[in-house]
Amino acid sequence: MVRRNEIAAIVEELCEQNKDSLTCHRLRHEAPMPSVDVLASIVEDLRAVLFPGYYGPSDVTSESMPFYIGANLDRLHRQLSEQINRGYCFVCQREDKALCKDCEERSRDIAWKFIRKLPDIRHLLATDVDAAFVGDPAAKTPGETIFCYPSIRALTNYRIAHELQLFKVDIIPRIIAEMAHSLTGIDIHPGATIGEHFFIDHGTGTVIGETCIVGRNVRIYQGVTLGAKSFPQGEDGSLIKGLARHPIVEDDVTIYAGATILGRVTIGKGATIGGNVWITRDIPPGAQIRQSRPMEKSFEFGAGI
Amino acid sequence: MVRRNEIAAIVEELCEQNKDSLTCHRLRHEAPMPSVDVLASIVEDLRAVLFPGYYGPSDVTSESMPFYIGANLDRLHRQLSEQINRGYCFVCQREDKALCKDCEERSRDIAWKFIRKLPDIRHLLATDVDAAFVGDPAAKTPGETIFCYPSIRALTNYRIAHELQLFKVDIIPRIIAEMAHSLTGIDIHPGATIGEHFFIDHGTGTVIGETCIVGRNVRIYQGVTLGAKSFPQGEDGSLIKGLARHPIVEDDVTIYAGATILGRVTIGKGATIGGNVWITRDIPPGAQIRQSRPMEKSFEFGAGI
Amino acid sequence: MVRRNEIAAIVEELCEQNKDSLTCHRLRHEAPMPSVDVLASIVEDLRAVLFPGYYGPSDVTSESMPFYIGANLDRLHRQLSEQINRGYCFVCQREDKALCKDCEERSRDIAWKFIRKLPDIRHLLATDVDAAFVGDPAAKTPGETIFCYPSIRALTNYRIAHELQLFKVDIIPRIIAEMAHSLTGIDIHPGATIGEHFFIDHGTGTVIGETCIVGRNVRIYQGVTLGAKSFPQGEDGSLIKGLARHPIVEDDVTIYAGATILGRVTIGKGATIGGNVWITRDIPPGAQIRQSRPMEKSFEFGAGI
Amino acid sequence: MVRRNEIAAIVEELCEQNKDSLTCHRLRHEAPMPSVDVLASIVEDLRAVLFPGYYGPSDVTSESMPFYIGANLDRLHRQLSEQINRGYCFVCQREDKALCKDCEERSRDIAWKFIRKLPDIRHLLATDVDAAFVGDPAAKTPGETIFCYPSIRALTNYRIAHELQLFKVDIIPRIIAEMAHSLTGIDIHPGATIGEHFFIDHGTGTVIGETCIVGRNVRIYQGVTLGAKSFPQGEDGSLIKGLARHPIVEDDVTIYAGATILGRVTIGKGATIGGNVWITRDIPPGAQIRQSRPMEKSFEFGAGI
Amino acid sequence: MVRRNEIAAIVEELCEQNKDSLTCHRLRHEAPMPSVDVLASIVEDLRAVLFPGYYGPSDVTSESMPFYIGANLDRLHRQLSEQINRGYCFVCQREDKALCKDCEERSRDIAWKFIRKLPDIRHLLATDVDAAFVGDPAAKTPGETIFCYPSIRALTNYRIAHELQLFKVDIIPRIIAEMAHSLTGIDIHPGATIGEHFFIDHGTGTVIGETCIVGRNVRIYQGVTLGAKSFPQGEDGSLIKGLARHPIVEDDVTIYAGATILGRVTIGKGATIGGNVWITRDIPPGAQIRQSRPMEKSFEFGAGI
Amino acid sequence: MVRRNEIAAIVEELCEQNKDSLTCHRLRHEAPMPSVDVLASIVEDLRAVLFPGYYGPSDVTSESMPFYIGANLDRLHRQLSEQINRGYCFVCQREDKALCKDCEERSRDIAWKFIRKLPDIRHLLATDVDAAFVGDPAAKTPGETIFCYPSIRALTNYRIAHELQLFKVDIIPRIIAEMAHSLTGIDIHPGATIGEHFFIDHGTGTVIGETCIVGRNVRIYQGVTLGAKSFPQGEDGSLIKGLARHPIVEDDVTIYAGATILGRVTIGKGATIGGNVWITRDIPPGAQIRQSRPMEKSFEFGAGI
Repeated sequence: MVRRNEIAAIVEELCEQNKDSLTCHRLRHEAPMPSVDVLASIVEDLRAVLFPGYYGPSDVTSESMPFYIGANLDRLHRQLSEQINRGYCFVCQREDKALCKDCEERSRDIAWKFIRKLPDIRHLLATDVDAAFVGDPAAKTPGETIFCYPSIRALTNYRIAHELQLFKVDIIPRIIAEMAHSLTGIDIHPGATIGEHFFIDHGTGTVIGETCIVGRNVRIYQGVTLGAKSFPQGEDGSLIKGLARHPIVEDDVTIYAGATILGRVTIGKGATIGGNVWITRDIPPGAQIRQSRPMEKSFEFGAGI
Repeated sequence: MVRRNEIAAIVEELCEQNKDSLTCHRLRHEAPMPSVDVLASIVEDLRAVLFPGYYGPSDVTSESMPFYIGANLDRLHRQLSEQINRGYCFVCQREDKALCKDCEERSRDIAWKFIRKLPDIRHLLATDVDAAFVGDPAAKTPGETIFCYPSIRALTNYRIAHELQLFKVDIIPRIIAEMAHSLTGIDIHPGATIGEHFFIDHGTGTVIGETCIVGRNVRIYQGVTLGAKSFPQGEDGSLIKGLARHPIVEDDVTIYAGATILGRVTIGKGATIGGNVWITRDIPPGAQIRQSRPMEKSFEFGAGI
Repeated sequence: MVRRNEIAAIVEELCEQNKDSLTCHRLRHEAPMPSVDVLASIVEDLRAVLFPGYYGPSDVTSESMPFYIGANLDRLHRQLSEQINRGYCFVCQREDKALCKDCEERSRDIAWKFIRKLPDIRHLLATDVDAAFVGDPAAKTPGETIFCYPSIRALTNYRIAHELQLFKVDIIPRIIAEMAHSLTGIDIHPGATIGEHFFIDHGTGTVIGETCIVGRNVRIYQGVTLGAKSFPQGEDGSLIKGLARHPIVEDDVTIYAGATILGRVTIGKGATIGGNVWITRDIPPGAQIRQSRPMEKSFEFGAGI
Repeated sequence: MVRRNEIAAIVEELCEQNKDSLTCHRLRHEAPMPSVDVLASIVEDLRAVLFPGYYGPSDVTSESMPFYIGANLDRLHRQLSEQINRGYCFVCQREDKALCKDCEERSRDIAWKFIRKLPDIRHLLATDVDAAFVGDPAAKTPGETIFCYPSIRALTNYRIAHELQLFKVDIIPRIIAEMAHSLTGIDIHPGATIGEHFFIDHGTGTVIGETCIVGRNVRIYQGVTLGAKSFPQGEDGSLIKGLARHPIVEDDVTIYAGATILGRVTIGKGATIGGNVWITRDIPPGAQIRQSRPMEKSFEFGAGI
Repeated sequence: MVRRNEIAAIVEELCEQNKDSLTCHRLRHEAPMPSVDVLASIVEDLRAVLFPGYYGPSDVTSESMPFYIGANLDRLHRQLSEQINRGYCFVCQREDKALCKDCEERSRDIAWKFIRKLPDIRHLLATDVDAAFVGDPAAKTPGETIFCYPSIRALTNYRIAHELQLFKVDIIPRIIAEMAHSLTGIDIHPGATIGEHFFIDHGTGTVIGETCIVGRNVRIYQGVTLGAKSFPQGEDGSLIKGLARHPIVEDDVTIYAGATILGRVTIGKGATIGGNVWITRDIPPGAQIRQSRPMEKSFEFGAGI
Repeated sequence: MVRRNEIAAIVEELCEQNKDSLTCHRLRHEAPMPSVDVLASIVEDLRAVLFPGYYGPSDVTSESMPFYIGANLDRLHRQLSEQINRGYCFVCQREDKALCKDCEERSRDIAWKFIRKLPDIRHLLATDVDAAFVGDPAAKTPGETIFCYPSIRALTNYRIAHELQLFKVDIIPRIIAEMAHSLTGIDIHPGATIGEHFFIDHGTGTVIGETCIVGRNVRIYQGVTLGAKSFPQGEDGSLIKGLARHPIVEDDVTIYAGATILGRVTIGKGATIGGNVWITRDIPPGAQIRQSRPMEKSFEFGAGI
């Protein structure tokens, strides 16, 4: 049995140490942390609005749909406003709580503006669904890609998060993106710009960085990295944030599994990048790039393999 | 506060747009969508049957086991029949609802045939457990691989889904495979054919495509792709579905992390494929393949790395 | 409707077959299996202790924190003792149940010793948070990395599991590590040794093997493998377990996405390893290694890409 | 540890015995039992429609209310249809399953007719709310009676169940009435007829039988029984069901706590019945009835009281 | 915001005061409190065994029933053993923990003996179901009484609890009885002896005391008390526990709503007791007892009634 | 299938009708309704503070108790403040939202004052536990009355609610009292004043009205009503609220089951009131009151009883 003195000592140590530590969250303005559970339910509600019948009640009819969508949007507005506001508080440095009133109103305003964007988001996702269906011989129906494919799940979260990012919402877009990352292994930064009719096959390990620009009709595979190569420092030695440092991928490009493309380089229109290559320079339009041929030789694997 | 007129307008836009869209599921025959939650519980019940004591009640004895397994199979039959039928409805194009009666009976019939395959499935999984245990120096007991290893979890779902696929069940096998994909990062298409004593170490990012044929005693690592290279089009320009387009991997092959093997190529018996290679041609039996040696040079990384 | 005789037959087959099979867990000493759900809640409680305010009640104050942490530690001690003991039973081969008494006491003792390590674990994690913040231009605040970044989630589980591993706890560390693996795609074996100020960007598909030694201030990316190359067999043909077989990565090394480094090789201090390379030999300090330049040529991709 | 033979024996005995027993439900027509959980959720949904803002989302506005109510009614129609059909199957004696088709359609039809009655039900409940508010000096607002008073909860269930009973729905009305009975101790049979502006104060132990007729503006207290006194038998000795056998209570009557009124007697308009009386005859309009005066005497209670 | 010093002070006061208080439970022998949730689930499992098809899976067939019942009994044995043991610990005064071993074995033994009584319990309940059906003109089928009637629910718990009481199980029988009391308002002490074919109509407020003896074919209504009148004290002034102090009710008796019968009196075979009477003496067989006629007079109710 | 026009029509009718109705809650000041679920959890937390070891973690020790109680009180303060504030908003008629700020501060203040009363509440409950134990021959230990007896559950809620009522909290006390009423059938108005060492045996149907004053060492049984007889109206015809209209019960009184005592009468010290009596006048100290003797005669019960 643990003796109280010991617990008391360790509690004291943990609380003491905590004083100067960045591992402890200081609540400001009495707004609690964003709720991952509520955000997950917000995303589920959005999926029910964007893909009615696939998500939400499956026997919705064209007659009953307006009621469901209307009730859904009303709830979404309330919940999203609250979470957006918590996002602001999360990064807020202001001491003067009187300024918080503005944040609440701004949150409600943005939540509403976001809801007005839903038809556009749905249009983009419809092109992504088409891309997945025509691009995968294993897909029997478009519906299958909506209901089963990690690509559509990840792009749904991305297109939601991206829109919120454009409205300068703090941290919430990142949380929504990480939800999809955890479920699908696809890590798309909400800041990335991605055109219509995009498809990521399989997707595990794919990374698309914050300042990427991806054109229309692009197709990439699992394990593809569109990343940064170097991070310029300011005079004080700290990283300069926000610089364009990720690739531009033009229309109609295909990138095979495991390719790593780093830095502000451009993959030209219609290029094809083979798997497992490491690219840190521009690739001209229409080029076809592949890894050096592997060597066949008796190399030094040990016994038992 | 959102004004009603605004909500009404956006609702109308979403419902309007929806009319011609593939993002909306039209319910046919009054059968609701397959339930991912029920399928997850079916897989859990199957794990309790396949690995008694590890899953399900942990203090089952040889005396009480028949009762648990019997009750489990009875419930499985009912739930699986229902989901198989929903799978048929999901892709069904028939207008005549009178034909649905056949689907219900067929679903029950297949669920029962599937249950009769469980001893075979368990036998295959026992060889996989052995492969994991003898192939991983970090494993202390076979039980540890059953209880902890992503390989066994992914192969359990795969071997279940594959058997359902052989019975021509619609979409359900894919959902079961994607569950494992989401949890483990291992993406095995239910259509793939995989021999006994198979082991995937770590596994995140591994992809095994629809028409792959994998022999016995094969071992692969994380990030390995056994994928398709090109998708022949029919005369109308649409993809021809169902063609053999993924690799054949013969017995006793080892493939290291991150290797990408594309197209209907054959990796010969006993070959060893090193990591990070890109292979689009046949590899002879016993060959040992590895990437070209990397270059060492001062290359253009920026400051701060 | 399934007929009883049929169910009875298949039940018998499953129970029969099971008798000699390694797929069935035999309960020893009446201790049930470790509970994954309880372990998940233990990890959540630990996160609330290590990152107060970020996890657990978000409006904890410096006044109320000691109560929460104290109650948390008390509950942790009880639950963890129980799970540690179950871990021992999981691998136990002893027939004499009288020896179990020792295990219970040992479990309680270790749980308490582990709790005393929490301040150290928190200190290490604070350096990891700093590494993530200063190393990622997309991070706006350190708090964002605690709340959103897979790296911190995976390292939290790793540093907990590693400490338990040092206390020779059975299987529990592996389960805790696999939880993080499933959620983040980052697979760090609890046996690995990792220094402070460590950062894994994106992380999906990253593997760090059991006998790895990683220095301070190391930074790696998604899809990096620090793995084993060959597994020496003993005279009886079975693998020799526990040998040092994974890389040593010295301080200040950076390894880019998709690099595969196998065997007991050393990556020297300050080296930079480019993406997608395959390395099975020592790399000297300060070296910069990258893949051979890819070829540009019209290669054999099919139509439709 | 229980030995299997013993379990097997007791199982056999329980299954054997069961064969001829009325304790075992024989499934007909493959329709499962009514679901108490679903019915509870149906009642909650109805409460959100009948008392918007008090139940369901509390920040519904007059703008968003139509969406919520519309979505609610659509879901209610589906769930209620299903449960009504299960109710029919519960009492069904027909062997010919082809007749079931009619029940399904009838269920849907009745569910819809019931929904059309909701405005009337709400009107009646509004008068009950008024009765509770004006009749209880402890009530500060009408809203308090909606949100807290057992009377309103029991009458809500009753008025729902009564309407379903009028549509000749089987068993479902009784289940809904028993839910309220369990929560409030108020047992109103769905077959009873109760006029508007009815109030039951406290209510625990109040019973209102199947063939009661209660007028307008009646007020009763806890522990009041409006019951049957005798049950005439048919020639075969079995009870004749459905006969009028419970009291008629005319308008403006008050009945105090614990009064027991049995048989098809009439309590005349405006009468007041004191507590704890036993009445088996008609009471004229305006009468005031009370128990004989109690005796004061040293009676035989034991020590210690 | 609450200041810590204040919380600390009140915490101290609560802990201080607690030291000598009977409001604080001292854990003995490390056995936790009986779990009300587990006991509720045990009762649900028992109901699925006693009334298969009504409770538990509703589409159980005579073919699948043995599996369900077998699995159920196995789980029941384990869970019930554990709770019985916790019940012993709850009242245990022994300091020597070495004696606890006996309790565990005794608990398992009793749980098994109890399971062997289930066929008898089911037989008794079948007579109660018959009593409810033939005794209530509102009941359409026996199944309705099983599925809806508080009488059957309360008697199920009572007959379970009574059997455990006969095995001298501590506190668990009382908890099971109180569950039914809370749900139905029927309070039957597990120590009471009740013959077959018993029916309680409506039941709210009915009380049957610890030493009651109720014959066969008895019928009572809501609000009936079979209670104790006086509690003899021992020489030290404390109550003498366990004395016969409640009524004996012989076969074929009917007792109407609200009757209060106190003390070790006998209600003779076939007697009928009218409602709201207060009886503290023997009633001869066949007697018919009713309250004095109420008075009709203008008594002193105030305005507004 | 329900046609949309029909749903739309009924929705309109429900929303229309609602406009003028008291069945619809108008949200003021954007504060949602009090949450019954949160209040239930608050009461559970309070029970864990008042009866540590019986409720909350059962293996709390005197060493760990301060942590649990401290964390509990901190959470209680936050949750209770919020609910108290919602209670104010529930009855608030003010249009000026600027005044709400005061309510929030007042709520926090009262929550804290209430917490300071917990030691007193615990002291009173300890006397109630003693009363239950010494007053019931069926109770083996005081702990049994804490863990099982409806009396203690109802009095816990009452003593909490009463304290909140004294602080003039709106509606929350009533909700807490109704929770106990629903579970136990004991209906004690939070406004009643009840002295120490109080015991209600069985309790179902017991009612204690708003202005009751109950002395020390009183004992009452199930079905006892301490109620109001008449409700004086003001000049406008509406009830005058808050008048003393319920009985005063002096010390050491016992009231048997089913007694109904109405109006501002006094039951003198040490009186004993027999069951089923109807009393509307003062009873002198020490008196023993019982019902007139029942008549024995062949009265008009029908056949079959």
